[in-house]
Amino acid sequence: MTATITEPNAANFSGADASFIEDFATLCTFGATEGGGVERLAGSTPDGRQRAWLTGIMENHGFRVEFDQIGNQFGLMELVPGAPYVVVGSHLDSQPTAGRYDGAYGVLAAAHAVARTAEACKKEGKQPKYNLAIVNWFNEEGARFKPSMMGSSVYTGKLDVSQALSTTDPDGITVREALSGIGSLGSGPGPRAAFAAEIHIEQGRSMERGGITIGLVDSNWAANKYEFIVHGEQSHTGSTVIADRRDALLGASMLVVAAREVANRYPDGLLHTSVGQLNVYPNSPVVVPSRVTMLLDLRSADEEVLAEADDLLHRRVAEIEEQARVSITRNSSHSWPVTPYQSEGVELAARVAESLDLPHSRVKTLAGHDSTNMKDIVPTVMLFVPSVDGISHNEHEYTTDEDLVAGLHMLTEVVRRLAGGELERAKSSLPS
Amino acid sequence: MTATITEPNAANFSGADASFIEDFATLCTFGATEGGGVERLAGSTPDGRQRAWLTGIMENHGFRVEFDQIGNQFGLMELVPGAPYVVVGSHLDSQPTAGRYDGAYGVLAAAHAVARTAEACKKEGKQPKYNLAIVNWFNEEGARFKPSMMGSSVYTGKLDVSQALSTTDPDGITVREALSGIGSLGSGPGPRAAFAAEIHIEQGRSMERGGITIGLVDSNWAANKYEFIVHGEQSHTGSTVIADRRDALLGASMLVVAAREVANRYPDGLLHTSVGQLNVYPNSPVVVPSRVTMLLDLRSADEEVLAEADDLLHRRVAEIEEQARVSITRNSSHSWPVTPYQSEGVELAARVAESLDLPHSRVKTLAGHDSTNMKDIVPTVMLFVPSVDGISHNEHEYTTDEDLVAGLHMLTEVVRRLAGGELERAKSSLPS
Repeated sequence: MTATITEPNAANFSGADASFIEDFATLCTFGATEGGGVERLAGSTPDGRQRAWLTGIMENHGFRVEFDQIGNQFGLMELVPGAPYVVVGSHLDSQPTAGRYDGAYGVLAAAHAVARTAEACKKEGKQPKYNLAIVNWFNEEGARFKPSMMGSSVYTGKLDVSQALSTTDPDGITVREALSGIGSLGSGPGPRAAFAAEIHIEQGRSMERGGITIGLVDSNWAANKYEFIVHGEQSHTGSTVIADRRDALLGASMLVVAAREVANRYPDGLLHTSVGQLNVYPNSPVVVPSRVTMLLDLRSADEEVLAEADDLLHRRVAEIEEQARVSITRNSSHSWPVTPYQSEGVELAARVAESLDLPHSRVKTLAGHDSTNMKDIVPTVMLFVPSVDGISHNEHEYTTDEDLVAGLHMLTEVVRRLAGGELERAKSSLPS
Repeated sequence: MTATITEPNAANFSGADASFIEDFATLCTFGATEGGGVERLAGSTPDGRQRAWLTGIMENHGFRVEFDQIGNQFGLMELVPGAPYVVVGSHLDSQPTAGRYDGAYGVLAAAHAVARTAEACKKEGKQPKYNLAIVNWFNEEGARFKPSMMGSSVYTGKLDVSQALSTTDPDGITVREALSGIGSLGSGPGPRAAFAAEIHIEQGRSMERGGITIGLVDSNWAANKYEFIVHGEQSHTGSTVIADRRDALLGASMLVVAAREVANRYPDGLLHTSVGQLNVYPNSPVVVPSRVTMLLDLRSADEEVLAEADDLLHRRVAEIEEQARVSITRNSSHSWPVTPYQSEGVELAARVAESLDLPHSRVKTLAGHDSTNMKDIVPTVMLFVPSVDGISHNEHEYTTDEDLVAGLHMLTEVVRRLAGGELERAKSSLPS
């Protein structure tokens, strides 16, 4: 790891930008880890503390704070009675031993960008066409409660709220209990959205390499995510001869290796495969494992590549079943295609970047984001700022203060234009 | 799995043998699983219940029950004031979703064999040369608390008692707390042993294939056990390009596969390799794992084969570090050579089997047993009865009632001879 993290330093900025960097430095203290990162799993005590702090920030700026039925935290300013909202935000929850910027930057930038927009409206005496909402989506990471992007999935009607609330973490605690425990369980579906915007760190290297400050996200990679269960047979690691074994961990390990081999068949950057989670039963030193559960995903910007790779992987599954004398079942799967963000939104963002003289380029998002859900119900603008060395989901995740502030300026102007109705014609291109 | 378990049926036996089978049927109810096995982890509630029941059995036969400083449970009968004891027993704790016979048979057979010997002494009016002890060793399995064979290791001075008592399970509960919780924490080093005996199921197929009822264990396999830690780097499973990844789970999986490949280089039965336990951090669906901890063991009856295989494996470790861009450290290791049981004890057991007309043969134990520890401090007789299909550490573990009773007869006569001093000359061959 080469990234050297510099602490946020408000002294290099003035006025509202300095306040933003000060607030970001405070945000970094919630769930801070010894290694310079944060650990704020969804619904945990540090998550509760940062949410309470965010409530204070939003109320100080004159926003009314409310939680919806799945714990999404909103700061609302109704400037146009009865009109729907421009919903701007990201997520404060994190992975274990995670970086400071993933999600957190986007929520705080939203709070400041929306507050600035509201103040500008009041100052200029101009009523916008839409109301303004800051959002902190619940459980984007999915580290403690599966699936990821839970809050925005419920908000956009893709996930049933009662199913989400009864989801349990590895200790058997439900989402409902965790949300109640941190005072974040509200009711109702949340405010009605007209448009959405999100800013996030890239979590890759392409912008840094290209000298780009603002990424205009025009689509997401396609992904196939699978839960595989490898079934073997418990036996004694000492006394069972090799020929008699049905070792579930051997089969699972072969599948981990096979997933990487499939990725290696393509030029780098074309296909990503991973196994992030793997659990062994009975996981005892002297017992040949009888069951391994694993989460495997394949991702590509090219749907044909993804389909071909998926086929290769499944052929390997069948071979591994025979070679390791195990059976492998696919317990669940979750796939999404390459889907574009509304081109009118990308074009609006490009105009804003031009007007602010910020180096910009179209990019694709490899990771899922709450905006991936939002774009399916309202025109949505998704922006990136660069990640130093592309490091993410790691305590060494880093984005410079200068890029954070450039992104804030960019987001503020996007929000101003969305609130003013500049993206209205994109609404007709949505699925009904 | 082909073994069909027949429930223990006392109706096929009479007298003391029927009582033994009845008691065994009762023992099978503690921690019974739906799949026909048992789950009685060391220091758990089911372990406490079966220990209380065993106390009753031993007290009914006139034994004084006491627990030593590490929770080994003894039933003592002092027939010769001040003399040391013939210590006979095994362990009642089990693996998760385990079989009914592993350890449990040996403890109950010991209780009945020793009680019969005591009764015979009284009936015949003959004073033995040594006192009689039944033992239920604490935590032989090591499934909940590492290392395995904990109770007999402390008893034989191989493991420090305070270290053992402060060992924690995955929930942070110490051995001391678990033992106190089930009323099994005593004090002192336990009774002084003169000789030891244990009977156990084979957990392999060799006796069944050879038509052997009694295995005379003459040595144990050599073993090298390692804890490897694979170190990678956390990153995002979606956005991190393959070339940038340092995936600890990929490295660990390659090592699991490599261990099996090393075993496959030898004819079946010559070398056993296994990974029974593997834990992934942070084990989140969308994070490339940064750390995997795994327990790997190699076992062979041939020390040269073991040394060669160990060397092959360690060469693969170095290759995997490079191929997967990870570093692999060896956190702990535990090895033992091929060590013989005292030949005088094997010969005594052979004479007993002849006298009882039981088909017998010398065998080696591939698994570790409490008697493996005991033989290093006193002359020790280790006996096996057959395992149907060799299945063990599995709910389908099975030994026929007929073999259980034959083993009980065998053990009873061995205990009688040990108490009478027949193995005295073997004491001189022990290390001082």
